[in-house]
Amino acid sequence: MSAQELIAAAKAASHKLGLATTSQKDNALIELARLLPLNAERILFANEIDLAKGVAEGMAIGLQDRLRLTSARIESLAAALTQVAGLTDPIGEIVREINHPNGLNIIEKRVPFGVIGAIYEARPNVTVDLASLAIKTGNAIVLRGGTAAENTNKVLVELIREALSNAGLDPQAVQSVDEFGRQGAVAMMQAVGLIDVLIPRGSANLIHTVVNEAKVPVIQTGDGIVHVFIDATADAQMAIDIVNNSKTQRPSVCNSLETLLVHRDAAARILPALFENLHGAGVIIHGDHDSAQFAEYVMPATETDWATEYLSLKISVKIVDNLDEAIAHIAKYSTAHTESIITNDQANAERFLNEVDSAVVMVNASTRFTDGGEFGFGAEVGISTQKLHARGPMGLTELTSTKWLVRGQGQTRK
Amino acid sequence: MSAQELIAAAKAASHKLGLATTSQKDNALIELARLLPLNAERILFANEIDLAKGVAEGMAIGLQDRLRLTSARIESLAAALTQVAGLTDPIGEIVREINHPNGLNIIEKRVPFGVIGAIYEARPNVTVDLASLAIKTGNAIVLRGGTAAENTNKVLVELIREALSNAGLDPQAVQSVDEFGRQGAVAMMQAVGLIDVLIPRGSANLIHTVVNEAKVPVIQTGDGIVHVFIDATADAQMAIDIVNNSKTQRPSVCNSLETLLVHRDAAARILPALFENLHGAGVIIHGDHDSAQFAEYVMPATETDWATEYLSLKISVKIVDNLDEAIAHIAKYSTAHTESIITNDQANAERFLNEVDSAVVMVNASTRFTDGGEFGFGAEVGISTQKLHARGPMGLTELTSTKWLVRGQGQTRK
Repeated sequence: MSAQELIAAAKAASHKLGLATTSQKDNALIELARLLPLNAERILFANEIDLAKGVAEGMAIGLQDRLRLTSARIESLAAALTQVAGLTDPIGEIVREINHPNGLNIIEKRVPFGVIGAIYEARPNVTVDLASLAIKTGNAIVLRGGTAAENTNKVLVELIREALSNAGLDPQAVQSVDEFGRQGAVAMMQAVGLIDVLIPRGSANLIHTVVNEAKVPVIQTGDGIVHVFIDATADAQMAIDIVNNSKTQRPSVCNSLETLLVHRDAAARILPALFENLHGAGVIIHGDHDSAQFAEYVMPATETDWATEYLSLKISVKIVDNLDEAIAHIAKYSTAHTESIITNDQANAERFLNEVDSAVVMVNASTRFTDGGEFGFGAEVGISTQKLHARGPMGLTELTSTKWLVRGQGQTRK
Repeated sequence: MSAQELIAAAKAASHKLGLATTSQKDNALIELARLLPLNAERILFANEIDLAKGVAEGMAIGLQDRLRLTSARIESLAAALTQVAGLTDPIGEIVREINHPNGLNIIEKRVPFGVIGAIYEARPNVTVDLASLAIKTGNAIVLRGGTAAENTNKVLVELIREALSNAGLDPQAVQSVDEFGRQGAVAMMQAVGLIDVLIPRGSANLIHTVVNEAKVPVIQTGDGIVHVFIDATADAQMAIDIVNNSKTQRPSVCNSLETLLVHRDAAARILPALFENLHGAGVIIHGDHDSAQFAEYVMPATETDWATEYLSLKISVKIVDNLDEAIAHIAKYSTAHTESIITNDQANAERFLNEVDSAVVMVNASTRFTDGGEFGFGAEVGISTQKLHARGPMGLTELTSTKWLVRGQGQTRK
C-alpha cells in the first residue's frame, strides 16, 4: 500500500473507533500494557539494530540516549498506559446546552477529531505515548517516527495493533508511514480531508518545516526561549533554587530556562551567589555588560544570545531597569512557551501574569513545571505554543473536537 | 504606512485592548451604536458610490443586494451592537483549575487571541459585525473587506475607530488594508507572529485560496453541501415543511439545503407532494433515476450534482435503500457543515446524530438553524467547517484563547 492508502485506511477505521465505548478503548490500553513487557526481548533487539546504525552513522550521545529503550523504560511505558486507561474519557462530554425559545434542544458534545497525524524524531517512547492518547480519545492515528527509530517503531506499532485486535478494535486505526521515508511525511502534510490535525514534535527545524509546508491543520509545539525575571524584591535563595532547577535539571527540553532577566536593584544582592551556583553546576554564562561585572567567568552576550534556544548548559543574563523592560524584552524574544517571575511584590506578580503573553506564566515557580505530567494530564502530546485550539501542555481534551446536536419536532426558521 | 506596518500597529495596540475592562469595551460598542445612525447619510453616500461602480461593472443583482446598505440596515447594525454589548464577556473566565500536590496553583484563564485577521467580500455589514465581536473579546482586528465595498468600509472603519477613541481605547486596534488591494490580503496571510488567527468569509474560492496560501493559523468557514434525509417513518407534512424551509428561505447562504436523500419506503408516500411544493416555489429539481419517476419536471442528476453547492433555487434528490446508504452518501459528498434527518424512529435519529461527522447534525429541524444568531451568540464570525479550535457557528468564545497561570512559593521540580 502507498502512504496515501495507509492514511485512507486510518480514516476508514476512525469512524468505528470514534464510536467505541470507554471500556473497549481502556481494554486496548491495558492489553498493550501487558504486551509490551511480554515482548521486551523483541523490542530491545530491534532497538539494538537502530542504535548500532545510529552509532555507525555518528549519532550524538544525546540522541542515542533518546533512542535507547531498556527494560525499565518499557516497564514505565506500560505503567503510563495503565495510568491513561484510568483517566476520565473526555468523549461524549456535554460542553454546552442551549434551549431555543422555539423548543429546539441544542447540545455541543465532545467528539474525536477522527484522524491525528504525528511527525516526530528518534524517540520510540513517543510512539506508544501518542498512540495511547489517540486510542483513549477514539482517534485513529498516523505515525511518522523518523528513520533513526524505524526498527523499534515497527515492532511497537505491531504490538499496538495486536492490542487493538485483542480488544476487538480495528488495528487499521493505527498506521505508520515510516517505510516511505520523507515521502511519508509529505503525504501526511498533504492529506487534506483525511488527517484532521497534524502534530509535529521534535526539533525547531522539524516543527517549522511542518508548519510551513502542511496543507492540513497543524498544532505548533515546542520551541522554548524561556525566561525567568528576578524582581527587585525577590528572595535570594528562592531565586537561586528556581534558576538552578529551571536551567540544569534537564537542559535539553523545551521548558528549560534560556534567558535570565534581573532587576537592577536585585543584581548586587543576588547575582554573585547565583552565578557561583550556576558556574558550579557547569553552566556557561553569557551576560550583558552590567551583569558581567559580578563574575570574571561571564562571557559577553550578543544580540544572538537573546534569540537562541541553547538546549544545553548555557544561559544568557541581562540586567533590566524595571518590570516594564523585562516584559518588553520577553515580548521581543520569547517563543511564548513559559516565563516565570520571582518576586515578593504582589502587584508586580499580577502584572507579569496578565501582561506576559505566553502559554504558561508563573510566579515563584520553576519553568520545568510546564509539563503534561505535572499538570495531571497523564501522557503528553506536546506543548502548544500557538493560541488556536490548544495552548500549553496538551493532554486528552486537546485531542478532541466538538459537534452540535440539534433535536427538534419539525421546527422551521421564520 | 504599508500593509505590514498597519498590521504591526494592530499588534502593538492589541496588548492594551486585551487588558481593557468589560465596561470600557462595552462603552465602545454602545458609542458605535450611537454613531452609526448619526452618520447614516455619510455611510449611504459612500455606499451609493460603491453600488454605482458595481452596477457599471455589471455586478450580479445578488451581490448588489449584499453590498447595499439602507437606513433600516444601519439601524439593525446598531441594534446588534447593543446586543453584543449586553452579552457576557468571556475574557477572564476560569476554564480549569489544578492544584498540584506540591502546593502550586494552576489556572487556565480565557484571554484574547491578540490580533484577528478577516478577509471577506462585498458585505459592509460584516465589517461592523466582526469589529464588534473583536472589540468585545479584547482582540485587535485587521480587516480586508474587498474592493467592491471599499468606500463604504472606509467610512465604517473611521466610525469604529472614532467610537474606540471616544471610549478611551486605542483606535489603532482596528485596521483596514483595503487600500492595498490583493497585496493587503497577501500581507495578512504572511503576517506570522502578528496575526494570531485569520478568518476567511465568503465564496468557496476565497476560502480555499486563504486556506492554501496562509502562513498564519486559519479557521476554515463556510461552504455547505447540506443534506436532509427523509427516513422511512418521516411525517409527510413535516418533511415538506422542513425541506421547503431549508431550501427556499434563503438559498444563497451556506446553511441552505442542496441534496435531499429519501428512504425508498417513504418515496411514493412523500415525494409527489414534496416535489409539487418545491416546483411551486420555483425550485429546479435534479433527481436520480428512481426519484425522477415522481414528477415529469425532474431533470436527471449527474455525479456533479452530488458535489455541487448550488446556492440557488436548485436541489438534487436521491433515493437510498436505508440509513446506512444515506450516511455513506453524506460521508462522501458533504462538506461537514449541517445535515438533518426527518424521522419518527428514535434509534435511527440517534444513529444519525452519532455517525454523521458534521459540525451540526439535526433531527426533525430545518438546516437554516445553523446560525450564530439562532444559537444565541449575538453577531456571528462565520460557521467553522473544520474541527480544530471551533466547530459550527462561531461567536465570542471562539475568538478567544486561554493561558495558564501558575502561582507558587518557590517550588522546584524533583
